[in-house]
Amino acid sequence: MRDVNVGIAGLGNVGSGALSILAENGDQIAHKLGFRLNVTAVCSRSVHDKTLPEAFRHVRRVSDWRELTSAPDIDIVAELVGGTGAAREIVEAAIAAGKSVVTANKELMALDGAAIWERAIQAGINLAMEASVAGGIPIHTVLREGISGDRVTALYGILNGTSNFILTEIEKRGTPFADVLAEAQRLGYAEADPSADIDGLDARSKLALLAALAFGEKITPADIFTEGIRRISPVDFQYANKLGHTIRLVCAARTTREGLLLSVRPALIPVETILASVQGAYNAVWVRGQYGADTFYYGRGAGPHPTGVAVVSDLMRVAREINSGSPHRVSPFAHARLGEYQPIPITQQTRAWYLRFRVKDRPGIIAALAGILADKRVSLDAVLQLPSESKNDLPFVITLEPTSEASVREALDKMSSLEFLTEPPLALPMETAL
Amino acid sequence: MRDVNVGIAGLGNVGSGALSILAENGDQIAHKLGFRLNVTAVCSRSVHDKTLPEAFRHVRRVSDWRELTSAPDIDIVAELVGGTGAAREIVEAAIAAGKSVVTANKELMALDGAAIWERAIQAGINLAMEASVAGGIPIHTVLREGISGDRVTALYGILNGTSNFILTEIEKRGTPFADVLAEAQRLGYAEADPSADIDGLDARSKLALLAALAFGEKITPADIFTEGIRRISPVDFQYANKLGHTIRLVCAARTTREGLLLSVRPALIPVETILASVQGAYNAVWVRGQYGADTFYYGRGAGPHPTGVAVVSDLMRVAREINSGSPHRVSPFAHARLGEYQPIPITQQTRAWYLRFRVKDRPGIIAALAGILADKRVSLDAVLQLPSESKNDLPFVITLEPTSEASVREALDKMSSLEFLTEPPLALPMETAL
Repeated sequence: MRDVNVGIAGLGNVGSGALSILAENGDQIAHKLGFRLNVTAVCSRSVHDKTLPEAFRHVRRVSDWRELTSAPDIDIVAELVGGTGAAREIVEAAIAAGKSVVTANKELMALDGAAIWERAIQAGINLAMEASVAGGIPIHTVLREGISGDRVTALYGILNGTSNFILTEIEKRGTPFADVLAEAQRLGYAEADPSADIDGLDARSKLALLAALAFGEKITPADIFTEGIRRISPVDFQYANKLGHTIRLVCAARTTREGLLLSVRPALIPVETILASVQGAYNAVWVRGQYGADTFYYGRGAGPHPTGVAVVSDLMRVAREINSGSPHRVSPFAHARLGEYQPIPITQQTRAWYLRFRVKDRPGIIAALAGILADKRVSLDAVLQLPSESKNDLPFVITLEPTSEASVREALDKMSSLEFLTEPPLALPMETAL
Repeated sequence: MRDVNVGIAGLGNVGSGALSILAENGDQIAHKLGFRLNVTAVCSRSVHDKTLPEAFRHVRRVSDWRELTSAPDIDIVAELVGGTGAAREIVEAAIAAGKSVVTANKELMALDGAAIWERAIQAGINLAMEASVAGGIPIHTVLREGISGDRVTALYGILNGTSNFILTEIEKRGTPFADVLAEAQRLGYAEADPSADIDGLDARSKLALLAALAFGEKITPADIFTEGIRRISPVDFQYANKLGHTIRLVCAARTTREGLLLSVRPALIPVETILASVQGAYNAVWVRGQYGADTFYYGRGAGPHPTGVAVVSDLMRVAREINSGSPHRVSPFAHARLGEYQPIPITQQTRAWYLRFRVKDRPGIIAALAGILADKRVSLDAVLQLPSESKNDLPFVITLEPTSEASVREALDKMSSLEFLTEPPLALPMETAL
């Protein structure tokens, strides 16, 4: 078997993490493969200012990615640039040039993964994207190979480390959202513009990819109902805990008789489920298969080294396939549409609900709210009120028996005109079936 | 791509589980593969008494496995017989006949995996064994591909569902070991002869296989220090909980500067670690990689369907490789011995320790025990005594600062002559670094 040569595009966090693993762990990698995986060239706009690992001191440095995709001595291009601009051009040019591609790009693959896979298959090259979701967790490998014999019926994930860090800090310390966010920004855990993380957009791209892999469908971010964590406050954790639950930004994809329900939103989950044990910046994915294979995968969601491991492991697999002459012949998105996996509106789902209100206290509040719920034929499960000092901004919680999201929204709409509410009610589904 | 034909040897739990998945999920499997995976023949001693899924009504039934391994129309033999007798002959005959093999056999592969892999590579056929350890968890796939770029430094597992069920029942209900075991036997969770489960032998085979995969070495069950759970009592959970820990039968393989430490034994683990959240008959594996990829995998350890998913997923991968003409060329056990992965005696490990005593109460007991510990230069961390009624069989606990297992054993030896002990002290390591 011959050596396989890699060109690395992008020397940011992920690129430098992957490079350092390829340098330090090169001998073990060669032992595992039975041949060497060489780094032939690296590319970045400021490539000459970069410090490379000693082992790669003499590697070709280029600042134009075309010098990777057109190089005759490169077998695999690793696209570690990110985004949907240059990254897309790099991936497309590499495929057109007959080179295999390893990418860490969740946005690009969530948006256009199906089309890119089709091109790769037409060109007879190999494509791999383990690093694009939940860097430290080899969830692509698991879905593609490990449990490929099963039929996935549900997939739940905690896929955004920043949000999970913020939520678990609110829970642990009782500090308001805004303060925890500010601290996370100070510590570098959250970006100056935190929207992609806290509004669920990053998690949405990741769920689009995982759901596509799990259900073999073309699922794009636009198919996914998405709600962020800005409204979650310490009092919500107090009530959730009282109910035996905690709150996480849950990415959910599950099959029903009617179709596929997809959402990214804060939800209550029972404290005794393993998903509730995911603390801080960790990621996790929980998969339910029809044949009893409930499995759970947990690890770092990001970071140069965890994501670098995903990139290097993909490079190894693709290199092995190049040496054995076996391109992928079936796209992971290529199932025939079986109907059962058509996304349907989230309003069709039925769940138990947590409704948290903040009110100016006066008699008749519960009666007014209960009246509206009764009108909409929604069954109230319990009313909870923890001791509170503020009569002018009094929180309390109503939980509902399993009810369709459509009915809950109608009831909430009706409630919006009630003048005793100091803010709109917060409605969170209770994911009790985990 | 052509259809690939499978012969199934063994129609017990695993064989019938795999068959039912192949029958019910056949269309989706064909979509994923791009070709069909056919069951051509099934073999069992009482094959004519078996009820097969409707889809396989016309499949050839044979009672002599030689009719599988010699059949020209079979590409893959699935060895689901178990044990090291006929199973070994089936695997060897299949390889000799140039057929690929999928096996669920932990004993055989733990004992002779390295040699069997060598034969498979010489013969140019494919071999897969996902179902051999932790049926529902695709941990082979993860180690072989998902995180292959990392260098594993430690692997901790809960690999025996029966033991974990018994331990978590003792913890939850405060019932003594013997009563929980009897109930587990009544419910069919434990066998009439429970030794393989509760004495750690089953877990030991599984750890041998996982450690071999993780470290690329020939590791056999005899390399692994093994102790069962018979001595764990409800009082141990009370003390462990008081110390912020729980107790699990922990399978551990970790690298040190001196070599590889391997053990299967009950150990204290902090309640806040994710490994502690593994309840009942579930299995879990926790992997630490040098490049920051701490990851955790959790699922059912056994059962026809979870194990069947592993078998079917292996069949799919091997079938894909047959169609792409790519045999495995490197054994997962085939790393050059790098020295760092040589097993070393467990006595060389250093751990904090939990020592539980039962004594006839009288003055001077702590002084006598502390004196022996001081003689052996072992530093005592704390002495704990929960309220107890029995002065003639009084439990209490001493915890030790990190100490070599050799020193602890010397101290325990010295203590064995103390006439106030009503039974030998129980020593459990505290795995605080999880």
